[in-house]
Amino acid sequence: MPSYVPPLRDIQFVLHELLEVEPALKQIPRYADLDTATIDSVIEEAGKFVSQVVFPLNQVGDRAGCARHDDGSVTTPPGFKTAYQQFVDAGWPALSSDPDYGGQGLPELVNSVVMEMLNSGSQAWTMYPGLSHGAYAALIAHGTPALKQAYLPKLVSGEWTGTMCLTEAHCGTDLGLLKTRAEPQADGSYSITGTKIFISAGEHDMSDNIVHLVLARLPDAPAGTKGISMFIVPKFVPDGDGKPGRRNAVTCGSIEHKMGIHANATCVINLDGAQGWMVGEPNRGLNAMFVMMNGARLGVGMQSLGLAEVAYQNSLAYAKDRLQMRSLSGPKAKDKPADPIIVHPDVRRMLLTQKAYVEAARAFTYWVSLHIDLEHHHPDEKVRKNAADLVSLLTPVVKGFITDNGYESTTLAMQVFGGHGYIWENGVEQYVRDARINMIYEGTNTVQALDLLGRKVLGDMGARLMKFGTLIQGFVKHQAGVPAMQAFAEPLARLLGEVQKLTLEIGQKAMKNPEEAGAAATPYLRIIGHLVFAYFWARMARIALDRQQQEPAADDAFYASKLATARFYYAKLLPETGFQIDAARAGAAPLMELQTAGF
Amino acid sequence: MPSYVPPLRDIQFVLHELLEVEPALKQIPRYADLDTATIDSVIEEAGKFVSQVVFPLNQVGDRAGCARHDDGSVTTPPGFKTAYQQFVDAGWPALSSDPDYGGQGLPELVNSVVMEMLNSGSQAWTMYPGLSHGAYAALIAHGTPALKQAYLPKLVSGEWTGTMCLTEAHCGTDLGLLKTRAEPQADGSYSITGTKIFISAGEHDMSDNIVHLVLARLPDAPAGTKGISMFIVPKFVPDGDGKPGRRNAVTCGSIEHKMGIHANATCVINLDGAQGWMVGEPNRGLNAMFVMMNGARLGVGMQSLGLAEVAYQNSLAYAKDRLQMRSLSGPKAKDKPADPIIVHPDVRRMLLTQKAYVEAARAFTYWVSLHIDLEHHHPDEKVRKNAADLVSLLTPVVKGFITDNGYESTTLAMQVFGGHGYIWENGVEQYVRDARINMIYEGTNTVQALDLLGRKVLGDMGARLMKFGTLIQGFVKHQAGVPAMQAFAEPLARLLGEVQKLTLEIGQKAMKNPEEAGAAATPYLRIIGHLVFAYFWARMARIALDRQQQEPAADDAFYASKLATARFYYAKLLPETGFQIDAARAGAAPLMELQTAGF
Repeated sequence: MPSYVPPLRDIQFVLHELLEVEPALKQIPRYADLDTATIDSVIEEAGKFVSQVVFPLNQVGDRAGCARHDDGSVTTPPGFKTAYQQFVDAGWPALSSDPDYGGQGLPELVNSVVMEMLNSGSQAWTMYPGLSHGAYAALIAHGTPALKQAYLPKLVSGEWTGTMCLTEAHCGTDLGLLKTRAEPQADGSYSITGTKIFISAGEHDMSDNIVHLVLARLPDAPAGTKGISMFIVPKFVPDGDGKPGRRNAVTCGSIEHKMGIHANATCVINLDGAQGWMVGEPNRGLNAMFVMMNGARLGVGMQSLGLAEVAYQNSLAYAKDRLQMRSLSGPKAKDKPADPIIVHPDVRRMLLTQKAYVEAARAFTYWVSLHIDLEHHHPDEKVRKNAADLVSLLTPVVKGFITDNGYESTTLAMQVFGGHGYIWENGVEQYVRDARINMIYEGTNTVQALDLLGRKVLGDMGARLMKFGTLIQGFVKHQAGVPAMQAFAEPLARLLGEVQKLTLEIGQKAMKNPEEAGAAATPYLRIIGHLVFAYFWARMARIALDRQQQEPAADDAFYASKLATARFYYAKLLPETGFQIDAARAGAAPLMELQTAGF
Repeated sequence: MPSYVPPLRDIQFVLHELLEVEPALKQIPRYADLDTATIDSVIEEAGKFVSQVVFPLNQVGDRAGCARHDDGSVTTPPGFKTAYQQFVDAGWPALSSDPDYGGQGLPELVNSVVMEMLNSGSQAWTMYPGLSHGAYAALIAHGTPALKQAYLPKLVSGEWTGTMCLTEAHCGTDLGLLKTRAEPQADGSYSITGTKIFISAGEHDMSDNIVHLVLARLPDAPAGTKGISMFIVPKFVPDGDGKPGRRNAVTCGSIEHKMGIHANATCVINLDGAQGWMVGEPNRGLNAMFVMMNGARLGVGMQSLGLAEVAYQNSLAYAKDRLQMRSLSGPKAKDKPADPIIVHPDVRRMLLTQKAYVEAARAFTYWVSLHIDLEHHHPDEKVRKNAADLVSLLTPVVKGFITDNGYESTTLAMQVFGGHGYIWENGVEQYVRDARINMIYEGTNTVQALDLLGRKVLGDMGARLMKFGTLIQGFVKHQAGVPAMQAFAEPLARLLGEVQKLTLEIGQKAMKNPEEAGAAATPYLRIIGHLVFAYFWARMARIALDRQQQEPAADDAFYASKLATARFYYAKLLPETGFQIDAARAGAAPLMELQTAGF
């Protein structure tokens, strides 16, 4: 059976030592009173909830899955509904929501920390409340006052949950092809008809109502993505008292049998003249949906971080416990029949890869979350704009890089277990199956790569990228007098230089042939991902070095571990950038030469 | 629903154009009469059997799994038993077995081709007869005449199947720890007691008898790997007529719930004073078992090749069919609402990666199989020795490199499908789950890497490696006058030089610190894997170039495709070697620095 301990020490390191969130958040008036102790106590409580309530459901949920009944209702696995009720009762859904609608008004950053832990507990369970947060974000940004009043308090409290209904059988990435129709009605509402697929948490028994945000076309809408509008379609139309009233014509036609996240109901949703209300402007539904999508992409990164963390914990425990063979340099556990496998260099490679990816992903995603708070609430517009640019640049990196690494991490965790990892009992193979979807949904990782290179980097002639580059240059300059930091600062500065050169090259080639951007995109995302991770590992190494000098006795093992992991990352993982630069530079020809019939 | 077409054209290309097997096999007296037409017709028949009988069972088997009943019997999925009976009736189990025991005496090479296709059909089904072949190999090499007479005809005909019983709960890699005991009996047999786990095909309803080859310790055996003996333990002890007689005390205690290969029964096997007979010499069981293991490692490579081939076929069909977005360089299918996704460079990257890995793996594994035939049956001892050295060097590369690539390939195939790949219906997620075990069983890929670098390369001071290097050098020299080949010959020669340099460096470091070999092993295996693939892609490119000149009209698309795939491989995949050389060269320190408590 797997186990999970909330990684509070590392979370606190990132929050308080790396990001210094208390002073950072104090710049924002609404968080002026928020102190370290409060943040930590919220996170500790959340950790307890995850360990005690959510985590024990994960394997049960995987085995039981969801069941759809003849009347279209869906039952979630044993314990899911009760746990969700406890979650609502404890007020967790309201954590970072607007106090005007009953929220607790804490930073997104705190919510991200909680989401990491919840996903370590159970990704499939966490998707139910997770999707509500997306619906909340779209409504608060684009809903009419009446819609906000009707829906937001219920979403904030968690009494109702939300979904995103985008995909149809013939269109996932290419939403311009979608066919669901919305006919205006005399009362200002719309009659919506169509079939959506792959709707996570689309139907279930955990909440009193389900609020679907649906993309559909008005009768006179232009073709393609410029003719898509967004509608709110509740399962039960709220009555005069705001309670779930008439059952709407939005039903679950079937649920999918999937590789993983069995405990989340992935539904075919049939809309048969369902009553809906428009959110945002006509034909601007994609813009409204992107509010949800950006949050969702960060959310998917948090899913893979959570899975990679718990998989790492379990493979580490196994590697310390499992006795097999002797160390190549002589027996280490002489009193035992063999050494624990953690003595073997290749097992350490697998563990350290996970550790280096997990801890950098934590630093990176928390940093992005902090910048979302700055973007939304900082009093200085320049700070807001700068934060918005960085968040926009790096959101596809969070999604693409962390989910690819998360899959590799969980795969390595399983490999540490050997044959014992392949069987259900030890829990780690589920993490691989669950992690696999994260590379696909909320925009495949190809879409993330194209978004990064095409829209975020080449789209503004590298201006956003330069903002991130400036941070790196500032950091590197700051290490000038610190000899022990040169092992990090030099390769970091060199990689930044290579990225700038490569970006220019790709930009020039892409002007002549747009396929060049498509061909370079995936290697480019991995290069930028490593640039980001190298930056955070260097920053963490600096803190560790400083702490080691300041307080030689204080938690020395923790800082030694940070430094060793940073060195491992620079020695063993960062060199992937050389490969990816070669691959990016090789250009489009090797991909486009072959005729379709020749495959 | 997935589909499968035996890749006969590419199989024939490898057999007849790359390996020129008819003349190659004619050097071996027993194959002097074997011609191309015979080989092709056997393979075509096998392809039909796979498409019509085995492939349709694969998804059914995954869903149904195996069931263990209260009496310890195990039922395989619907259709499995019938298909196996057809397999036996058609004589397939006897294909490459010794005619003295009823075999058809065809080369191992032909068997390997058939195994590739069977694994494309269903890895889980193919494991039942596949394991028999291993038991056959161990018995024919080490069995007494009486044991051979009692068991081989039945294994050859397929009436009985075999297993390998090595693993115990506390020992997988480290067989020196095994505890199963064998007590000598007055009649010359042994009474065997212990519990084995992870026994594939350990109990089932497909054959009349199951022949277990069991590792156990004699009462006076020395500790560790030098005290292990091998025993044959039949489920039913053959009676005087050679028919299954008395039920032996070897039973299935439970079956595992696994990530994949659901349709193969992975059993806990309880031996409660089961009657067994020794195979080979006392305390030399591991040597005897390695006869099976080496064959099994090639077999695991064929499993991943088979899975990668069928996954590629299905993702390719999907990529040609699925319409989504327009090509970056302008619409290609103007009459359709969007272009097929195969127009997009990143989709092509995913398809070409699969294609390049599959076709090189086919060339490589067939070449190794041919060398197994040369090793076993060539009249010239020097040829036999040379072939044996190459097979021994490259067996861990077949196992480690092809299974890692196979997992990546199936993962990419799934990614091409997007969300549709994550659901069971399209079949591709099963390939990922099935492919995952291949990196673990028959020696984890860490064990393969250590075997390659430690035993096969450093163990003989690079002599075997030099034999393979000589082949490459000969090939490179042969390209001197062919300008179009320089794009392949130059990087190939350069990589060989880098490998030689790196090997020397690692050897020197490992003499001072054995952890250096452990630290370098996994990157080293990937480097050697690429050296092998680069060699075969260069050879295939040369053939394609020659054919294009000789007969411009003859199957031009096939050779153009080979050349384009070779160029893709050199441009986009081979550069991984730079990364792996960096990682290998970074040495042991970044792995060993961190104390166990610091993880």
